[in-house]
Amino acid sequence: MAKELKHVVSKDDNYSQWYNNLVVKAGLAENSAVRGCMVIKPYGYAIWEKMQQALDKMFKETGHENAYFPLFIPKSFFSKEAHHVEGFAKECAVVTHYRLKNDPDGKGVVVDSDAKLEEELIVRPTSETIIWNTYKNWIHSYRDLPILCNQWANVVRWEMRTRLFLRTAEFLWQEGHTAHATREEALEEAKKMIGVYEKFATEWMALPVIVGHKSENERFAGAEDTLTIEALMQDGKALQSGTSHFLGQNFAKAFDVTFTNKEGQQEYVWATSWGVSTRLMGALIMAHSDNNGLVLPPKLAPIQVVLIPIYKGDDERKSMVAELEKIAAPLREAGLSVKIDDRDNVRSGFKFAEYELKGVPVRLAMGPRDLADGTIELVRRDTLEKEVVPREGLTERVVGLMDEIQHNIYKKALDFRNTMITKVDTYDEFKRVLEEKGGFIAAHWDGTVETEERIKEETKATIRCIPFDAEPEEGKCILTGKPSHRRVLFAIAY
Amino acid sequence: MAKELKHVVSKDDNYSQWYNNLVVKAGLAENSAVRGCMVIKPYGYAIWEKMQQALDKMFKETGHENAYFPLFIPKSFFSKEAHHVEGFAKECAVVTHYRLKNDPDGKGVVVDSDAKLEEELIVRPTSETIIWNTYKNWIHSYRDLPILCNQWANVVRWEMRTRLFLRTAEFLWQEGHTAHATREEALEEAKKMIGVYEKFATEWMALPVIVGHKSENERFAGAEDTLTIEALMQDGKALQSGTSHFLGQNFAKAFDVTFTNKEGQQEYVWATSWGVSTRLMGALIMAHSDNNGLVLPPKLAPIQVVLIPIYKGDDERKSMVAELEKIAAPLREAGLSVKIDDRDNVRSGFKFAEYELKGVPVRLAMGPRDLADGTIELVRRDTLEKEVVPREGLTERVVGLMDEIQHNIYKKALDFRNTMITKVDTYDEFKRVLEEKGGFIAAHWDGTVETEERIKEETKATIRCIPFDAEPEEGKCILTGKPSHRRVLFAIAY
Repeated sequence: MAKELKHVVSKDDNYSQWYNNLVVKAGLAENSAVRGCMVIKPYGYAIWEKMQQALDKMFKETGHENAYFPLFIPKSFFSKEAHHVEGFAKECAVVTHYRLKNDPDGKGVVVDSDAKLEEELIVRPTSETIIWNTYKNWIHSYRDLPILCNQWANVVRWEMRTRLFLRTAEFLWQEGHTAHATREEALEEAKKMIGVYEKFATEWMALPVIVGHKSENERFAGAEDTLTIEALMQDGKALQSGTSHFLGQNFAKAFDVTFTNKEGQQEYVWATSWGVSTRLMGALIMAHSDNNGLVLPPKLAPIQVVLIPIYKGDDERKSMVAELEKIAAPLREAGLSVKIDDRDNVRSGFKFAEYELKGVPVRLAMGPRDLADGTIELVRRDTLEKEVVPREGLTERVVGLMDEIQHNIYKKALDFRNTMITKVDTYDEFKRVLEEKGGFIAAHWDGTVETEERIKEETKATIRCIPFDAEPEEGKCILTGKPSHRRVLFAIAY
Repeated sequence: MAKELKHVVSKDDNYSQWYNNLVVKAGLAENSAVRGCMVIKPYGYAIWEKMQQALDKMFKETGHENAYFPLFIPKSFFSKEAHHVEGFAKECAVVTHYRLKNDPDGKGVVVDSDAKLEEELIVRPTSETIIWNTYKNWIHSYRDLPILCNQWANVVRWEMRTRLFLRTAEFLWQEGHTAHATREEALEEAKKMIGVYEKFATEWMALPVIVGHKSENERFAGAEDTLTIEALMQDGKALQSGTSHFLGQNFAKAFDVTFTNKEGQQEYVWATSWGVSTRLMGALIMAHSDNNGLVLPPKLAPIQVVLIPIYKGDDERKSMVAELEKIAAPLREAGLSVKIDDRDNVRSGFKFAEYELKGVPVRLAMGPRDLADGTIELVRRDTLEKEVVPREGLTERVVGLMDEIQHNIYKKALDFRNTMITKVDTYDEFKRVLEEKGGFIAAHWDGTVETEERIKEETKATIRCIPFDAEPEEGKCILTGKPSHRRVLFAIAY
């Protein structure tokens, strides 16, 4: 195991391999025997659980309830919303049979051709269709609205090139699906939920994001408007981290969901949907980590403080661990998640490296000298600064450090992100910045699908968003020279 | 909606329809457009979430961690464990293709025959195979053991006759999968976890259960021993509510999972698996409910106390709701989940019926007379007893009632269950009790598969378990007259 730790490639040498190394060696996830599907290992899942808990609480505080809808969707449902079928029904897992039988040749089992489904079932890539088919029976009058449901679920999209957390065939997510009596209320809901995602990214993940509208090209299949939070990774690529869609009446019309309004008239229902997924794990890892391993924001760290005894011989180990227990108790009482690593089969240096790899925010190590002096060695993961501090006041100090580290990680990511937004006014400059620097490029665009597509073809950059806070500014499209009224953000994206 | 409430069939008239009525009308779940798959509605899901939280906490307190494994399992994996394939690989959802394409006829989408999978994927009916294939890479030495993983997931078993919660094609569950260095440790783990289930059933669900071993016939496919908790429903049928399996080295051998023990020798790893599912929702509903609706144990009730204003006119409504807010505040501070129903479009009588249907443990109603008198009307759901009580000391009283109701529901179910265990010594008596009374029948059995199967064929009764606490007692098998050393429990089961 010791040698495994050393094989994290430097992120400057090979960012992509560095990422993959981290995910695997820190014990977050690994590829499975099933193409494109990952195993989320306990340490990775513990981080995801913390994300889930925080998000779930925010959803409930904004009036949402959880529910659960079927994994399978009848094939015909996808054809009902014209844009949706183009976007989602293509690369998907198709269930065609419901039984296996013993191979007549005696070798294992084969599909029983007598057990063919009349209509194929699709493993949900997203649940708008099955949910709106259900809402049809739930909604009759304006009194049944709004419906504010969320679902935590697995979904499957048959991706050809997969990467742990960032793009996998199966992934875990939450999908909110709401139904409203008015257009205004649905628009407000879509905006509220992208706000929840922004708050979560900022305050929990320590991840600065830019909030804005997607261009038509990048919109969710079936949406009238897609709102997004866009984050920047350390390699200068953007990562779409959460989206919230105003679906208009598209799904209500596709599934014939109407309600009687206060005036007694029949109207189609207005809809939103919004989701974040285990992709956030990828964002978390790529935004903050370094060549020593993960750097986890304290609010999402499964272990916030690790205590390591320094000793010679078993007697000293025991007495040191006993002292560490005394230190751990008040930390735990203060609500921190604390681990004492008393393993006697690895050296303390190995342990230090391991918890650095795992991104534990604070490490405390104590040896006989510290014991005699009433001190302890404290190392914070974000800066790797080492200090010998008095045991007196340690709990308050560590509790305070949690906030300090959380903010420092955020500030570091924010400072980096801010240096990586470049204004350009010509297409040549655009291409040069893309190639030499990367990051977000704020440029004028004529607002057409054609222009965006041509830029994408030629440079691989896409419009990440039209930021909410984009200032009105007259300018000329970098490609066509046509008039533009504000800058949009381009980037090469994950 | 008012008329909907009245259509709960009496459980004495038609128990099965009564159950289905309750599930649907209390808003717990409903059938979906996909055969055998249910939609778990927000109120039902809220109960399931409470179950999950309590169980998850117990799993973590016993040293387990959560992880996540793929939804899909390669078909060949099922053939690797001989018994397992017989038990699980037959009625299942089979993914054969990974793409749809536009129908050349222009009508929707069809399966793209070019996108056929080389090997079919099975939607997991249970995850032993994919997990043990993964554990192979995690386990090398005794130092890697034990592995104590749990997964919260959806699984699919293609059931022909489905019933909401009790038997559905897709259901939600948790599955624990542990790996151990010794047979003893694995046996101990299997026993520990059935103990966790027993504690959860007893203390949270207020559901008395009998703990014991399954007979060979009823064992999990691939297990060497299956431990079970068996509950009794009000119609005298048994419901298997959770199982914990000692898997021996079967899966380790099937997937070649070995470890180096302390003596430096290679050994196969020992395994357990254990699970409970949304079936517990069915048990909860059927064990306690009455003709007025659900009776929820306070520990699992999403709403523990509902407050209803009695008023004439909007002014009175507002002042009454304001008073109820004053009562709700300290109840919430005491940790209770409280709802004030201030709807003005339904009568209070309708509300009373609705919260009875939904099984809310305590209902408080206040009108102008109560306000003047400093009293409030209190109705407990379990007994439907109505009392006018002083507002003074109300919080303590309601908090105390939570415990009292929890215990009373348990005691009622226990008393019923105890009257429904009948000792019989002849096959005639066995058949008569089965037909006239139902419940558990404690009888002698010769221990053979053949006898159990013949009894099942002739009476539909199966051995629910060989109770842990079965007293040694010499007797004769009710069918064959062969010697038996203790009684086992038979019943007709869900």
